[in-house]
Amino acid sequence: MNVSSNTTVAVSGPPQAPDGPAADSPPSYWSTSVSRVAPTKVFIRGYDLEDMIGKIPFAASTFLLLRGRLPSPAEARLLDTVLSAILDYSLQKSGTVAARYVASANPNMAAALATGILGVGKNTMDPAGTARFCIDAYARYEASKKPAKVFAGEIVAELREKKQRIPGLGHPVFRYVDPRAQKLRDSAVAAGIWGPRAEFFEEIFRAFTRLPGKDSIVLNDIGMMALVLVEMGFTPEETTGLAILSTLPGVIAHVTEELREGRPIRTVPEGTADYDMSEKNFNKDWSEAGWVAE
Amino acid sequence: MNVSSNTTVAVSGPPQAPDGPAADSPPSYWSTSVSRVAPTKVFIRGYDLEDMIGKIPFAASTFLLLRGRLPSPAEARLLDTVLSAILDYSLQKSGTVAARYVASANPNMAAALATGILGVGKNTMDPAGTARFCIDAYARYEASKKPAKVFAGEIVAELREKKQRIPGLGHPVFRYVDPRAQKLRDSAVAAGIWGPRAEFFEEIFRAFTRLPGKDSIVLNDIGMMALVLVEMGFTPEETTGLAILSTLPGVIAHVTEELREGRPIRTVPEGTADYDMSEKNFNKDWSEAGWVAE
Amino acid sequence: MNVSSNTTVAVSGPPQAPDGPAADSPPSYWSTSVSRVAPTKVFIRGYDLEDMIGKIPFAASTFLLLRGRLPSPAEARLLDTVLSAILDYSLQKSGTVAARYVASANPNMAAALATGILGVGKNTMDPAGTARFCIDAYARYEASKKPAKVFAGEIVAELREKKQRIPGLGHPVFRYVDPRAQKLRDSAVAAGIWGPRAEFFEEIFRAFTRLPGKDSIVLNDIGMMALVLVEMGFTPEETTGLAILSTLPGVIAHVTEELREGRPIRTVPEGTADYDMSEKNFNKDWSEAGWVAE
Amino acid sequence: MNVSSNTTVAVSGPPQAPDGPAADSPPSYWSTSVSRVAPTKVFIRGYDLEDMIGKIPFAASTFLLLRGRLPSPAEARLLDTVLSAILDYSLQKSGTVAARYVASANPNMAAALATGILGVGKNTMDPAGTARFCIDAYARYEASKKPAKVFAGEIVAELREKKQRIPGLGHPVFRYVDPRAQKLRDSAVAAGIWGPRAEFFEEIFRAFTRLPGKDSIVLNDIGMMALVLVEMGFTPEETTGLAILSTLPGVIAHVTEELREGRPIRTVPEGTADYDMSEKNFNKDWSEAGWVAE
Repeated sequence: MNVSSNTTVAVSGPPQAPDGPAADSPPSYWSTSVSRVAPTKVFIRGYDLEDMIGKIPFAASTFLLLRGRLPSPAEARLLDTVLSAILDYSLQKSGTVAARYVASANPNMAAALATGILGVGKNTMDPAGTARFCIDAYARYEASKKPAKVFAGEIVAELREKKQRIPGLGHPVFRYVDPRAQKLRDSAVAAGIWGPRAEFFEEIFRAFTRLPGKDSIVLNDIGMMALVLVEMGFTPEETTGLAILSTLPGVIAHVTEELREGRPIRTVPEGTADYDMSEKNFNKDWSEAGWVAE
Repeated sequence: MNVSSNTTVAVSGPPQAPDGPAADSPPSYWSTSVSRVAPTKVFIRGYDLEDMIGKIPFAASTFLLLRGRLPSPAEARLLDTVLSAILDYSLQKSGTVAARYVASANPNMAAALATGILGVGKNTMDPAGTARFCIDAYARYEASKKPAKVFAGEIVAELREKKQRIPGLGHPVFRYVDPRAQKLRDSAVAAGIWGPRAEFFEEIFRAFTRLPGKDSIVLNDIGMMALVLVEMGFTPEETTGLAILSTLPGVIAHVTEELREGRPIRTVPEGTADYDMSEKNFNKDWSEAGWVAE
Repeated sequence: MNVSSNTTVAVSGPPQAPDGPAADSPPSYWSTSVSRVAPTKVFIRGYDLEDMIGKIPFAASTFLLLRGRLPSPAEARLLDTVLSAILDYSLQKSGTVAARYVASANPNMAAALATGILGVGKNTMDPAGTARFCIDAYARYEASKKPAKVFAGEIVAELREKKQRIPGLGHPVFRYVDPRAQKLRDSAVAAGIWGPRAEFFEEIFRAFTRLPGKDSIVLNDIGMMALVLVEMGFTPEETTGLAILSTLPGVIAHVTEELREGRPIRTVPEGTADYDMSEKNFNKDWSEAGWVAE
Repeated sequence: MNVSSNTTVAVSGPPQAPDGPAADSPPSYWSTSVSRVAPTKVFIRGYDLEDMIGKIPFAASTFLLLRGRLPSPAEARLLDTVLSAILDYSLQKSGTVAARYVASANPNMAAALATGILGVGKNTMDPAGTARFCIDAYARYEASKKPAKVFAGEIVAELREKKQRIPGLGHPVFRYVDPRAQKLRDSAVAAGIWGPRAEFFEEIFRAFTRLPGKDSIVLNDIGMMALVLVEMGFTPEETTGLAILSTLPGVIAHVTEELREGRPIRTVPEGTADYDMSEKNFNKDWSEAGWVAE
C-alpha cells in the first residue's frame, strides 16, 4: 500500500519523500484506505469514481467498498441475492415499528431510519453471532484433525452441557426447512461460493437435529445469510452491516407510509396496555420519607 | 475570554505570547469553552470540578454548563422545577414506546435511550417552536411601540389569515387551564423570573382565547416550559435539550421495565393491524415488466 | 399491585366476515401495504418472497418496496446507478467521521451506522430540498402558462430578492460541470427517464448561471440525484432515504476499518483544539451567587 | 385494496370487573407501572404529578421513577451528587465529538444528543461492567464463607490467570487516587449509603494494588459511580442510564456551542489523516474480474 500524508500546513522537520512519509514521521491521527477525495476526483479503493458510475452495479460497489477489490460477476450477483433475501418483515420487526413511532412524533426520515437500525441487535436480525460461531467452530475443527461428523457431534454435546444455544437455528413457523434459506443456499452453490465453513456448520446443524425432539428445527434465513457471507469473506461485524443494509429499503417504505398517513404522536393501541392503578398520597409519603416542607 | 492553544507539537512560527495565541496564528479547527481537561484536573466553565463535587446540585451544574455562569439559588431551584415538571407520560409518548420496541430487539440501554430522544420532534415534546415564537413576537412588539394588547391582537389576526398555529397552546384533555403549566408558572413568579417576554406571549394567548370557540383552549405544559426557559435566558435549541433531559429518567425507567420483562422481539399487538391482503403473480408480472428469465 | 386494563371502547360486536372487516368495523390502529407475514410465507407488496429470491435484483426490490410495483429493467438499472453514484466521501463527510468516533467508544456496528445516518441533514447529503424545490417550481410553471425560459428567470429573480438559495447548486471544487452529476444525467437520458420537471429545473439553473459571477457554478451530484429520483416518481422524503441507503456501504467500510484498527476512545487530534484557559474561584463565586455552605 | 384484519384471538368475553381485569382475562400486550395518564391527571409511580411539581427535586423524581418509591433526603442528595460528579470531559469524550460532527451536518438538537448517547459503550463512560462485577463478586464472596481479604485475593488471582481485567480501575493520568472518585466516596459514606458490596470491591482493589507494579493504579470515577449506585440499589443497566443522564447537560452545551459557531459540514482537521494514495485502472481490473462491457 502506497500511503502518503495529506499534510498541507508546514510542520517543522525534514522534508517528506515524495512517495510517502519519512520513515520517522509520526503516523497521522486518522488513516483510511476506503476512499480518497482529490481536488476534482473521488477515488473509491483506488478507482476513479467517474469511471465507475453507470458501469458497476450497487452490489459490486458494496463488495468493493468492504473488501477492497472488485468482485467477479458471480460474487456480485450472490451478494445482490443476499441483500434481496429478506427485504421486509412487515410490522413483525421491532425496529420497523419503532421507526414508525419515531416518525409519528418527529417526522424526519433520517431519525426514523436511525431508529430502525438501532432495532437490530442480540435478539433479532443480526447474523454476526452465527458468523462468529461458524468461523470459530471451523477453526477448532481444522485443528482437531477429527472427522467432521465426529467433531460436530462433540460440539453439539459440549453446547448442550453448557446449556448454550446454537445461533442461526429455529423459526417460529417453519419446520424442517426454511424455504428462503434454501433458495439462498442454492444461489451460493450455483455461484460456486459454498464452501467448507458453511458445510461444517451444516454438519453441526445435522448433529443437532439428530437429538430427540429436534428433528424439525430449521436453519433459518439469518443463519444462512451469515454462512453465505462468511464464505464470501466478510467479517462478523460486516455481516451485521450488510443485514442492516438489506432491510433498509423496507424501513424507508414503512416510514414513507407513516409520514403519508400523517397520524401524529402514535401511542399504544387502545385496550392493549395494563397500567398499575395504585394511587398513593404524595404529601404523606413525602414527609414520612423525611422531607420537610420548605 | 482568555483563550490559548493546546498545541503540543512544534509548529513553525513565532513563540506564542503567554496570554493567548499570537495575533497571526491560525485559529484551531476546534474551539470550546465548555470545559477543559488538564493533566490532573477537569475545569467546568473555568471551575475546578473537584471544588464542585458534593456542593453544587445537578440543576445548578446544568445551568453552569449551558449558560457559562453559576446560577443563583432561585435560578437553580426553578430550573430543577422545570426539569421535574413533566417526568413521564407513560405509553402515551411515542418515543418511549419506540425505545421499548428497540430494547426488546437490541437489549442495550444506550441504543434504547437514543431512540427515546429521536422521538422528540416537530409533533411533540419540543418547546423550541414556542420559545422561538415567543422571542420573535416580543422583538416585533418592542419594535412596534404599540400597546401589548393591541399588538397581540394584530399577531393573532395575522396568524389566522395565514392559517398558522400558535405553538404551545392546546391539550387533548385539559380545558381552560393546564394545572401542571399553572404550577410551573407559579414557581417562576415566586422565583422572580417571570418576565416581559412570557407576559407578552400570555397577551397573545388571551387574544387567541377571545376568538369564538377558543375560550377553553389551554396554554400547555410544553408551552409553559418554553416560556420559563426563555425568561431564564436559554435559546430555543437549549430548550429542546432541556426537555429531552427532563424526560430521560422516565425513559430509563421504561427501558429497565422492558429489559426486566424480557419479552423478546416485540411486534404489534394481535388484532391491531390491517394488512393489504392482495396476492399477485410474480413470474407473470415480472415478465410483463420486461424482464427475461436468465 | 392493582392493575386494570385501559380498554375504553367496546371490543365485542358482530363477527367479522371471513374475507375482510365488516363494513362498519372500526379501522385498525395500524395499516400497511408494504408487506405481510403469513404463516409460512412473506408477501412483499403482494408478491411471494420465495418467487423473488435469486431473480429480482436489490435495486428492483427497493423500487418495488417503495413504489408498490415492479420496475422495468431500465428503471431498475437507473435506480442502481443512482445508488452507486456517490458511494463514499472519505473523511470529508461529517456523518462518517461521527460514526468512527462512536465505534471507537461503543464498538457496535448498529450504533455506528445509526450515527452515520444522523449525519444526513439540512447541510449535507440530503436531496429532499432539491426534490421539493423541483416539484414545486414545476407545478408553478405549469400553472403559469408562460414560456419555460421566462418563468425560470422570474423564479431566479424572486429568490434573489428574498435572498434565498437554490438548492442543488454549487460545489467546493467543481466549476461549470460536476462530472459525476453529468454521468448520472446521461444514464437517466439513456434510460428514457429524463423528463419535464428535471428539464425545468435545468432551465432555472441556466437562468441562475447567466447572473454576473455565477457562470461557473455547477449543478452538483446531490442535486442531480434529486432530479433523477423525482423523474422516477419518488417523493422528497424517499429521496432522503435513498441517499442514506446509497452511502451506507461506505459507512460500513469505515466502521469496519475503525473496529479493526481498534483505537479505543478517539478524541480530537493533538494540537487541533483551542480551549478557554480561564480559571475561576468556585468557592468565592459560589457564595457571591448567593449560596450558603451547608 | 383488499384489506383484512389479522385478529386471531377472540376479543369478546365476560365483562371486566370495574376494579380490574377478570381473573381469567388474558394479560395485555403492554404492562407498565412507571406512570399512568388519566383524563386530567398524570400519576408517577402512583403519585399525582400536580402534588409533586415544585416540591420534589429532579434527583428525587429520578429516584422515584427508577426505584418506585420516594427517596430519603440523603438518598436524593447522594444521587444528585452522583449525577454531578463527572459533568463534562470536553473534546476528550468520543460521543461529544461525534455529536458535534452530526450537528454540523444536521443542525438538530435531538439527532446530536442521540449521537452523544450512542458514544457510551464498552470502551468508555459505562459503569455497568463494574456494577455487574461488584454484584457478582459479592454474591460469590457471601457464598464462600471465607474472610473478605482471602477471597478477594483469590478473585484477583483467578482473573490474572484468565488474563481478564478488573473493571473500574485505572486512569490515563491519576496515580494512587482519583480525587473525583474520592469525593464521591466521601459523599456516600456521609450519607450512610456506603455498604458491604462496595467495601468488598475495595478489598479486591486493594488485593490488586498489592501486585508488583500495580500499586499506583486508581479506582476511577466511573468505577466509583458504579459502586455508589449499586449500594443505592440500582441495577447495572440503570447505572448506564444514569451515567448517560449525568453527561447529557455537557453534550447539550457542546451542541449549542457547535450550532452557534455554525461551521457547516465538519471534516477531519487538515493534516491529521493519511489516505491510501494508490490509483488503479478501473476498466482494466473490471474486465479482468470477468465483467464484459454492456
